[in-house]
Parts: sequence; C-alpha cells; structure tokens
Amino acid sequence: MRLDKRAQADMRNIRLETDVSKHAEGSVLISIGDTRVLCTATVEEKIPPFLRGKRQGWINAEYAMLPRATAQRTGRESVRGKQTGRTMEIQRLISRALRSVVDLEKLGERTVWIDCDVLQADGGTRTAAITGGFLALVLAVDGLIQSGKLTDTPIKEGIAAVSVGKVGSELLLDLCYEEDAAADVDLNLVMTSSGKIVELQATGEEATFSRKEMLDMLELGEKGIEELLHAAEQALGASWWYVGEEVEHG
Amino acid sequence: MRLDKRAQADMRNIRLETDVSKHAEGSVLISIGDTRVLCTATVEEKIPPFLRGKRQGWINAEYAMLPRATAQRTGRESVRGKQTGRTMEIQRLISRALRSVVDLEKLGERTVWIDCDVLQADGGTRTAAITGGFLALVLAVDGLIQSGKLTDTPIKEGIAAVSVGKVGSELLLDLCYEEDAAADVDLNLVMTSSGKIVELQATGEEATFSRKEMLDMLELGEKGIEELLHAAEQALGASWWYVGEEVEHG
Amino acid sequence: MRLDKRAQADMRNIRLETDVSKHAEGSVLISIGDTRVLCTATVEEKIPPFLRGKRQGWINAEYAMLPRATAQRTGRESVRGKQTGRTMEIQRLISRALRSVVDLEKLGERTVWIDCDVLQADGGTRTAAITGGFLALVLAVDGLIQSGKLTDTPIKEGIAAVSVGKVGSELLLDLCYEEDAAADVDLNLVMTSSGKIVELQATGEEATFSRKEMLDMLELGEKGIEELLHAAEQALGASWWYVGEEVEHG
Amino acid sequence: MRLDKRAQADMRNIRLETDVSKHAEGSVLISIGDTRVLCTATVEEKIPPFLRGKRQGWINAEYAMLPRATAQRTGRESVRGKQTGRTMEIQRLISRALRSVVDLEKLGERTVWIDCDVLQADGGTRTAAITGGFLALVLAVDGLIQSGKLTDTPIKEGIAAVSVGKVGSELLLDLCYEEDAAADVDLNLVMTSSGKIVELQATGEEATFSRKEMLDMLELGEKGIEELLHAAEQALGASWWYVGEEVEHG
Amino acid sequence: MRLDKRAQADMRNIRLETDVSKHAEGSVLISIGDTRVLCTATVEEKIPPFLRGKRQGWINAEYAMLPRATAQRTGRESVRGKQTGRTMEIQRLISRALRSVVDLEKLGERTVWIDCDVLQADGGTRTAAITGGFLALVLAVDGLIQSGKLTDTPIKEGIAAVSVGKVGSELLLDLCYEEDAAADVDLNLVMTSSGKIVELQATGEEATFSRKEMLDMLELGEKGIEELLHAAEQALGASWWYVGEEVEHG
Amino acid sequence: MRLDKRAQADMRNIRLETDVSKHAEGSVLISIGDTRVLCTATVEEKIPPFLRGKRQGWINAEYAMLPRATAQRTGRESVRGKQTGRTMEIQRLISRALRSVVDLEKLGERTVWIDCDVLQADGGTRTAAITGGFLALVLAVDGLIQSGKLTDTPIKEGIAAVSVGKVGSELLLDLCYEEDAAADVDLNLVMTSSGKIVELQATGEEATFSRKEMLDMLELGEKGIEELLHAAEQALGASWWYVGEEVEHG
Repeated sequence: MRLDKRAQADMRNIRLETDVSKHAEGSVLISIGDTRVLCTATVEEKIPPFLRGKRQGWINAEYAMLPRATAQRTGRESVRGKQTGRTMEIQRLISRALRSVVDLEKLGERTVWIDCDVLQADGGTRTAAITGGFLALVLAVDGLIQSGKLTDTPIKEGIAAVSVGKVGSELLLDLCYEEDAAADVDLNLVMTSSGKIVELQATGEEATFSRKEMLDMLELGEKGIEELLHAAEQALGASWWYVGEEVEHG
Repeated sequence: MRLDKRAQADMRNIRLETDVSKHAEGSVLISIGDTRVLCTATVEEKIPPFLRGKRQGWINAEYAMLPRATAQRTGRESVRGKQTGRTMEIQRLISRALRSVVDLEKLGERTVWIDCDVLQADGGTRTAAITGGFLALVLAVDGLIQSGKLTDTPIKEGIAAVSVGKVGSELLLDLCYEEDAAADVDLNLVMTSSGKIVELQATGEEATFSRKEMLDMLELGEKGIEELLHAAEQALGASWWYVGEEVEHG
Repeated sequence: MRLDKRAQADMRNIRLETDVSKHAEGSVLISIGDTRVLCTATVEEKIPPFLRGKRQGWINAEYAMLPRATAQRTGRESVRGKQTGRTMEIQRLISRALRSVVDLEKLGERTVWIDCDVLQADGGTRTAAITGGFLALVLAVDGLIQSGKLTDTPIKEGIAAVSVGKVGSELLLDLCYEEDAAADVDLNLVMTSSGKIVELQATGEEATFSRKEMLDMLELGEKGIEELLHAAEQALGASWWYVGEEVEHG
Repeated sequence: MRLDKRAQADMRNIRLETDVSKHAEGSVLISIGDTRVLCTATVEEKIPPFLRGKRQGWINAEYAMLPRATAQRTGRESVRGKQTGRTMEIQRLISRALRSVVDLEKLGERTVWIDCDVLQADGGTRTAAITGGFLALVLAVDGLIQSGKLTDTPIKEGIAAVSVGKVGSELLLDLCYEEDAAADVDLNLVMTSSGKIVELQATGEEATFSRKEMLDMLELGEKGIEELLHAAEQALGASWWYVGEEVEHG
Repeated sequence: MRLDKRAQADMRNIRLETDVSKHAEGSVLISIGDTRVLCTATVEEKIPPFLRGKRQGWINAEYAMLPRATAQRTGRESVRGKQTGRTMEIQRLISRALRSVVDLEKLGERTVWIDCDVLQADGGTRTAAITGGFLALVLAVDGLIQSGKLTDTPIKEGIAAVSVGKVGSELLLDLCYEEDAAADVDLNLVMTSSGKIVELQATGEEATFSRKEMLDMLELGEKGIEELLHAAEQALGASWWYVGEEVEHG
Repeated sequence: MRLDKRAQADMRNIRLETDVSKHAEGSVLISIGDTRVLCTATVEEKIPPFLRGKRQGWINAEYAMLPRATAQRTGRESVRGKQTGRTMEIQRLISRALRSVVDLEKLGERTVWIDCDVLQADGGTRTAAITGGFLALVLAVDGLIQSGKLTDTPIKEGIAAVSVGKVGSELLLDLCYEEDAAADVDLNLVMTSSGKIVELQATGEEATFSRKEMLDMLELGEKGIEELLHAAEQALGASWWYVGEEVEHG
C-alpha cells in the first residue's frame, strides 16, 4: 500500500473549481491531492510576430511556482533574473499539449495565454497544469462564443495529463512528491478524449527501463486520463459542449 | 454612496484564512473585498551576510502579482528578467513595516521570509500584504515557540495597514481599484496596535493636498486599522498571545 | 548642538549653480552641505508609448550615485546589471514630485528627462535631487519658451523637498549622513510654493512614532522648504517668471 | 523514397572522428548526414555544491548552436543575454541520458562537462549530441584510467540516441531538417547497448498519435540505435573496453 | 629557436579551407598553427536602424570561443548572461577592420554578418578571425555578384592581420599561446594588400616599449601580412577577382 | 586654423583640480577643454580571487559617462542592464595603462579602484581618464604612505595619454568632439615620463593610413604628453615625490 493508502492504480483526489478569478476570461483551481495549481486563460486580440499573415491564432502557456509552494522555499525567478530550465521545459510542454487539441485557424487571429501558477506542490504539477489549463481554455472559448467573437468551437477534443512512475519494482499511477523523488523512472502522459497520445515522456534518471515496463506504465496512465477527463466533463458542465469530440471513456 | 454601496468610512469585507499552506511555517490568505493575497512565512536558520556577528535575526518580504491578478494580464517579471520598481518599492515597505514590530535580537539568528503573492488584485494589495504578512509571521513565531526554538515572543505588538484616498472632493477609506485609479491623493498608513505610526506615505499624483486633508485621511485610516487588527485577533485565536502588547482598539 | 554646530531647525548651506552643463537644456549643481547632485534636464520631442494619442507630455527622472559618492565605494549598477530597489524608489519619487507641479498638457507632446547624479553624498540626496531637478526643469522650460516651442509656461508653481528626522528624542531638520544613520524616524517632505504637500513619507525603521511627532516634523520641514524655495528663486533669476504661481513665503 | 534517396528505415551516413581537440580530455566530431556536432569532455576535479559530502561525481552537458549552423542565421544567446528554453531542454536531456549509464560513485568526486556545439544543423542535433557526447565521455574516462586517477570504469554500458518521425502517413528513421519540419509526430529515443530505454519522448505538434504508431516508431528507433552503437564501437577502438557491458546488437 | 622550432620571423602553418558550411553565404575554416577559427558570412537584406536613409550597407562581426577551445574550460557567455569585455573588444576590432576595405555604399542596403567562432585556441585568435573573416566576406560578395544582386565589387582591397610580440628581449612574429602568455608587449597589426595600416594596437601589459621596438615589430608584422595575403589569394582562387586592388606582395 | 582657433599641435586648456571628493582616498577633476572627468581612487584592503597567494596588489579602473555628458542624451547602462562594448574597452585600457607604471608587488595585497566618470564629454574622454586617473592614484598612494601602510612608493614613473587624429589631410593634436567625429584616423597614445610607450592604438574607421602618417601622429602625441605631465607635476605638488622616476620632459 502506498504512503497515502492508495492502491497502485489509484488517482489522488481530483477537485476542479471553475471561475475562481474575477478578471480572467477562464479560470480553474485544480487540486490533485495536495497539489494545487491556479490556471487562468487570457484572451488577447493579437498574435505573435512570427504568425503574421498566417490567419491563425496561438496558445501560449506560462508556468511558475510560488516560492513556498514547495517543502523548502525556492527563490523567485524574478529575483534571480531568469527562468530555470525546468520552468521553460514545462511551459513549452503545456503550450504544445494545448495546441494539439485546438484548431488554430478556427481560433482566429488571437492569442490565448494560459497561466499556470502552482500554489502548492506535491508532485505532478506539470500534468495538473495541462489538465487545469485545458479547462481554463474551454471556459475562455465559451466566453468567445457567448460574446459572438467565435461562432464555432476551435477545440477539437478533450485533453488531460497524468504521471506514472516506477518506484522500486512497482509501477504507480499519479505520484505524490515522496514517490516522485524515489522513482527510478518517470512517465508523463498527455492524452486526448479519443484516446490519442499527444505527448509521452518516459525518463530514467540514472536508470533505464524496458519496453514492457513502458507499456505497463502507459496503461496505468490511460486509466488516470479517463478519470481526469470524466472529472473535467463534470466540472465544465454546459461548457463541455464546446469540446468538439465526444468523450470516449464511457 | 460608493461604487460598492459602502459609506465613506467603511472598510470592505475582511476575510483571514490561516494555515492555508501545507508547507509554510505560517500562512494566511487575506481577502479585503476582491483583493486576495496569499502570505506565507518561511523560517530559515541563517542570516544575511551583512548581519554576521550582530547576534540578531532578520525579516525579509517579497511581493509579486500573478499575471492575471489584474484586469489586464501583466507580463511575468521572471520573463522580463527583473522586478519592476513598483514591486521593489512595495516589498521594501512590507519588510520595513514588519521589522518595526519585531525585536530582531529576540528573534535570534534566523531569517523569516514573508512571501506575499497577489492572487487577485482590486486595490490595496500592498496594505493587504502587510496585514496578512503580519499574521503569517505570528503563526511562524508560534511554531518556533511550540518547538522550543524560541522561549519568548519577539513580536512587540500588532500591526496592520490600510489605504485612504481623495477622490474628487471626497476622502474615502480602503479604496477599491476603480477608486484608486480615480484618486488624486493616495495615503497608505501602517500602524501598530498601540496606535503608533510605522509608516505614512501620502502621495499626490499630478496633484497636491493640504495638511488638513492629510490629517482627515489619517483619521479615516486609524479607523480601518482598528477593524483590521480586530479581525486579526479573531483569526489568530490562541496565537494572538504571541503578540506582545495588548490591542488597544477596544 | 548638532555635529556640524547647527541648531535643530537649521538647514545646511544651500548652493545652487545653474547652467553647469554645455550640452543639457537645463542644468543645476545643487549643494546642500556636503551633498552634491548634478541635475540636468533633457528635452526629447517624443513621448512614451503609453501616452500616445493623449495630447500631453511627460516628465521622467533618473537617479544614480557615482561609485565613490559614498564613504565606502558602492559597486556600479551597470556592472551589477540592474538598478537597486532604492534607486528605483527614489527616481519614481522624483518623477512624481516634478509631475505634480507641471501641467502636462501645456507641456505638449514631449518628454523632459531629469537626470540626477549624486557626485557626493552626505544625507538628503533624494530631496536635493527633487529641489535641483526642479530648477533644471524650469531652465529647460525657459529655453522652450525662448525658442518659441512653448508660448505659455506649463509650470504651475515652485517645488522643493527636505528631510526631517527623529534622532534620539530630538527632531532635526535636514539630516546629514551621520544623523540619518542614527535616526529612528525619517520624514521626507515635498511641498510646493503655495504650501501644498505633494508627498510626505514618514518611516520608522525598526521604530514607530506618534501623530504629534509627525506634525512637529512636518512643521520643521515646512521651514526648510521655504528656505529652499527662496534660494531657488534667487538662483533662477529671470527664469523664475516661468514658475506660474507667486512664491508665498513672504 | 525520401529526399536524399534513403529508404524509410535507413540511417544517414554516420561519421565519428575522435581526438579532434588539442586541449579536451575527450573529443569527438560526430556527423550524421549534414548534421555536425563537436563534442568535448572536460574533467574538472570538483563537484557542484549540492553534491558535497555525497561521495559521488557528476556529469553536466551544455549544448549550443553556432549562429550560422542553421539555414537562417540565429542570434547568439550570449548577445541575447540568456539561453533559450529549447537549449535548456536539450542540455538537460543530454545530461540525464549520459548520467544514466554512469556509476557516479565510481566516477569519484569530479565533474565531467560535456560540451556539444553544433557546427552545422540538418535535423537530429540533440540525438547526435548524446551519441557523440557519450564517445567524448568514454575517451575522457580512458584518460582517467590511463593516468591512474581511476582504476575501474564507471561506464555501465553504451548509449546512443536517434530520432524517428511521422511525416504524412509514413514513419521515417533519422529525420533530416526538411523531414523534421514536415513531421506531425517526432520521437526521440535514447537507448543503451543492452537494449534498455533511457528516455523516450514522443511529441505531437498540433497532432496526435496512436499507441500502435508509437510502437512502430520505437522499433525503427531501435534499428538506428544498433547502427549507431556499432559505429561507436568501431570509432572508439580500444577505448571501447571501458564501456562496461558487451554490446548486444549482434 | 622557438618552442615549435620556428625562427623569429617565421609564421606558423597557414591553412585556409573555403566553403566549409552548407548554409552560409561564405565560409572559411582558418588554421594558423593549432589555432582554428570557423568564419561564416551571412548576407541579410536589411540594415541596422542607425543607417536608415543613408543608402549604404553595413558589416558586423561577432566573435566567440567554444568552451573547450582553451586549455582550461571557459564558461559559456550565454550561461553567464553576457559577453565579456574581451569578446566585445575583439568583435569591434574585426568589424572595424573589415569595414575599412569595403565601400559600404557599393555594398548596398544590406548587412553582412561575419561570425568568427574559435574551435581551438593557440594564440592569435583575433588576427586569425580578421584574416579568415575577410575570406568569408569575399566569398559572400562573389555570391552576390553571381546572383546578380551586385554588379560591381564593394571590396576595395585585401586585408589580413597578424600578431607580433616582445618575449624577453626577442621580437617574435605570430605568437603561439605560450609565447603570448610570456610576452611583455603585444602588437596586433591589421594591414591591406596595398601596404596601408588599418589598425595597429601595441600594448604593454605591466611593461613599456620604445618607438624603435614598435617599428621593428611593425616590420615583422608586415612580413606576416604578406604571407597571409598570398595564402588568401591561393585559397580564394577565382573569387580573388572580387578583391578590387591588386595584391602588392609580389 | 581649427574650430577653436588652435594650431595643429596645440593642446586644449588643461585644468587639474585635486582633492575634490570628501570621501575618496584620491580624487581629481580633470578638464581638457570642455571635457570633464571626475576621477577617484579607492583603496580596498583586499585583492581579486585570481591573485590569491601571489603577494601582489591590483589596479582596476571603471569608466562611465553621465547620461547628459553628451550632446544627445545617452541611456544609462544600469537601465539597459549591461555595459556597452565601448565602455568595457575603455576601462580595460585605463586599467592596463595604470598597471604599467605600478610595481604591483610593492603596492601590497590591496586593490586600488580608479573610477572615471565623465561629467561632460567633448572628445578625448578615455585619454583624460587615464591622465586624471593617474593623479588620483598618486594621491591615494600618498595617503597610504602618510598613514604608514606603505613605506616605499609603488609608482615607477609618470603616465599620461592623449589623442591625435587625421582630419582631411591634416594631423591634429588633442581632438575635440567635432574633429573626432570627422577624423579618418584616430590614434590614442599612452606614454610614461621617461618617454616609453605603454599603449598605442591607431585606428582607421573605414579608412587606412601609412607608416609615415603614424610616425607623424606619434610625434604630435609625444608633445601633448609632455604638456600633460608638466601640468600633472604642477597639480600634484609635493605628492609628485611619490612618482618614482624623474620626469624627463625638460
């Protein structure tokens, strides 16, 4: 049994609070166990320079942790004067993931900024940011449609992300911080509601793994994704109609 | 009557949630109307270089806003590569204010970091940060005493902060964002529970004011401080015993 | 009696040399005791982006100290790669102060840069910078009028700034460095020639103060402001005609 | 047939020149088709601060491209003042990959820096950097053993990396730049000589893929890895003896 | 006799490989003894802002060393966040030198970037960069003429650079690293094929020199320049026709 | 005749005011025509890390211009976040020049910082900084000797610097800004009181020059150096005794 009494294939508690921000076009506070990430979507009616003349929109995510989101205080990146490699890697991942389920031409010439700020970290912050960021995006799209700025949803299907790890000889779904720190292999899976993979990153830190282990981890991850997408559908309520494709987890 | 139906000398709704962080030694989520600031206190058992050999501790505050805390998204300081002048000015103010009610020798050779992160901004974020930061500090001191690292409280008295402004010809307590943007004069008051002033900053932006107006604003501010300190006492419960001086607001 | 034999309410020696720069549109070397600040005004025929279309001008001040302006050498901010919080706070203060006595619409769509570089520091550099910066500004406006770029003065009235402090139990006007370092409370006052307050910053560093003490300090400051404005009038000579309002110090 | 006449499962030409640097402890110029990366290994007899007291060594890789390694000139990161997110992501990958086949305790309290500088880019620079960086590392270890600083090799087995992609409906091994730019899915595989996976990153950029496609790409990648490790063995000659485990590709 | 058996007035081995880059408009790998610099020329059809409306082109050089070009590894400037003073000084020198033999009006409104990246350093990297950079520039101009973008060559004459030093009491041509490190006086000479000086920098580091010594060093330098220009002519082949003035060394 | 009525070989007015700073160990305000540079020397009783254990001292110069030292305002390097290449080049030159006349072992394990801040620029700021910086250094050494920290002077001889240029077909001594801007060739000469050269930098910007022209410029420069050293001797008075070698200009 795991530290927090979960079985190997159990997700932690999932909580999705929508519309938590007075200002943002879309916002979600996602809690996966003790990990809490505030995700906001900002619609900006302009596009980055490299897209000029391409008649399409863009989605750009940023990620950060509050200094005391972690067990030890982490110095602010603004004081340090630059973002760490870890931060950049994570926000590139979130951006790519969300773009994969959006028809950028249908989005029109606008940028949606997804800000994912970790209020409390206990493992799986990047996957929570993807899952929560998607909800904020859908809510912002809902707003664009309600206000008549869009007539058709640019969102092709649902998306969520989860981590799986190999700790000792066990494969575990949805690692908390202690498990993550002890893991030899760490797999992050981003998957759509139609069961397609968007991103799979399997990493051995000073360790290796077999193809079989990877496939077993993938299977655990698929289970987690289904649960996350189910929760997302519940949380979004009517806004879920703007997620183009039917969810296939049931 | 004001935008939100308050009278001239009314504070907005005050909400103080303590122990909101799993990791921090002290933490408070302070809400003043729609302004929400997450304040954490981190105890670090070392001191900055300039204090070596001085047998005293230090308190250092940092302040930041989430990108979409504001009506328009504000770019991250970590992306920009440096903190703005406004941020630096505010965190210097918070640090000074909190140090004024702490006996740094009694604190011992340790640093307490106060992180004030604005989750949602609607005016008065710097004063909310001081008020909330003080509570986080008291909770951290409580922990130091419970764990036997301190035997005597270094906190000399309570402290809180509030804004007052002159909007048109009216003097108003506790400005919300719209009022703040329209104000000709802005006064920030930091005051202790014994009624002493710690910091008074009265500023005319492209405007001036008389001594009489300043005194009237000060009086309004004192009323707000009393209400904030009363709320702080309620929120801290037993931890309030570590605030050295009796509160004199009633 | 004070270190330099002054009485409690005495200003240090005030010296104002105008037109000290071959290149600048306005320039003043202000000496207050041993504090020396070179203030230049540069007129730039464009405005910052955020003012586009607003049909008004802008005033922007920058402040710095030469490395050996101080008793100990201070490393250059250009080597460090960024300005300190103290520098930013001071230049924001100078900018705000000068803007408060200028009709920015009358100034027209141009920016006046006020550069305040401390050649030698002995306390009160920020207040000397405001007082000297104002003179440089008036001289630049005089030039704009002489050259026909302006027909009417945008300067509404005179302005000056001074520090007051509480050292031990004494309230002292115009602190030199040793007094400033020993002060429990520091008050900076910015005031106009009509006796209006522009900015009042009263700060206890690890100390507090009463309303009565603040008012006594304010009174001392007012005396200093009068003397400074009198000296400014003498130094500006005919250029003083471009300071809109009559000086009211008698 | 592909642009350069290769079949779907063909690697480009592999060329590995060893000892190309007069100064470095190990060096390799790796060419994969037109991609050319200069890899040097530097042995430094100290460890990063976070490893103090842990009695182990460290491997740290850095990656950069010459400005005109690419079809369009890319501005220098040193002029820009910081490394891009892409660079950071890649050098973190190289570092992790190489550490996975090294027994860091056996390496002793020293750091091996692996510098991978892309002289010419034509797709697959990060995988070439891992493959070439490994050879430079082995040569540096050889030197440590020859000079008596190490008695036993810390290298556990061989390692190499390759890219696979889905272009249109075709799965292709070892993408050149044009193929990479056209690919919907990009998979980078890092694998050891015993056939274990170290890292698998499969990414859909604005696209998704199925589990089946991922497995087919993995299989193609394994073929490429075998060829790369075979070439590495040839190039290293006697130094190959310091690669602990026998190569299993034949 | 010198370390590497050269006589006092001997150049090291000169090797000039042209067209070493698949992408660049001009490229040369210059080897002077063990010093190896990769020089590429990039033609960009725009000009820097300060040249707008001046109907002329520009040449801008950048210089860098790979981390392990040197005997000890040098940290990357991109990691450090800025270029060193040495780097800036060198690239300003290269830029000035190359501009002195180009008719910038004839070049037309375009910028030629010359990137000089030191792959291996053994003294004289800045002079090798000038000599090699010139060849890359000629090859790029050849391309502009072949493609019809230019009808007439903007290159006025050939140029090369060499170092001379005073080591102990001896004056030596073309210093290798060990000689350079031991030199009391260091002279860098940039000269054209018509025997005109473009730049002469003679520097005593904690030492001085006489006018006579300077003239003797200049004479040695002239001999080296002749050999370099002869090698350049050989290496450029037909492209040499685009070097306006006849070489006068034979 | 020149713009300011000087003959070809005339220096501008030289003015050297010593002890202009209350705080610095040595200070000089040097005026060469309208160019004014404030030079201070700071003695720091420690040495840079790379000199540890070498039993010698160090001299380090820094150079900057006030924003409005120039005809057009130049943005601050501290705001820009880094020093320009020009600044770095100049401060490296000043440092080298001053070190060449100091016996660093005799100086002892201390650093002398020479800060050269240009208050007003009209050509020749770098040479004025060397000349003035030398005086500040001598004054600081005088102080070290008076206070018994040094018994013997580490200064080997006097030093000064001057510019010469070729404007049209004329060779001119000590260029003012307009002449400098119009010059085809610019020569900076640093020379000692015994007539030895420390540094000679002759530069053609988009122009070349002959050996004969260089020698003629050198001769003009020597005349200027003599005048500068004569003025230095007058200005230093008794402190000149700490300049080791007798001046040989008369």
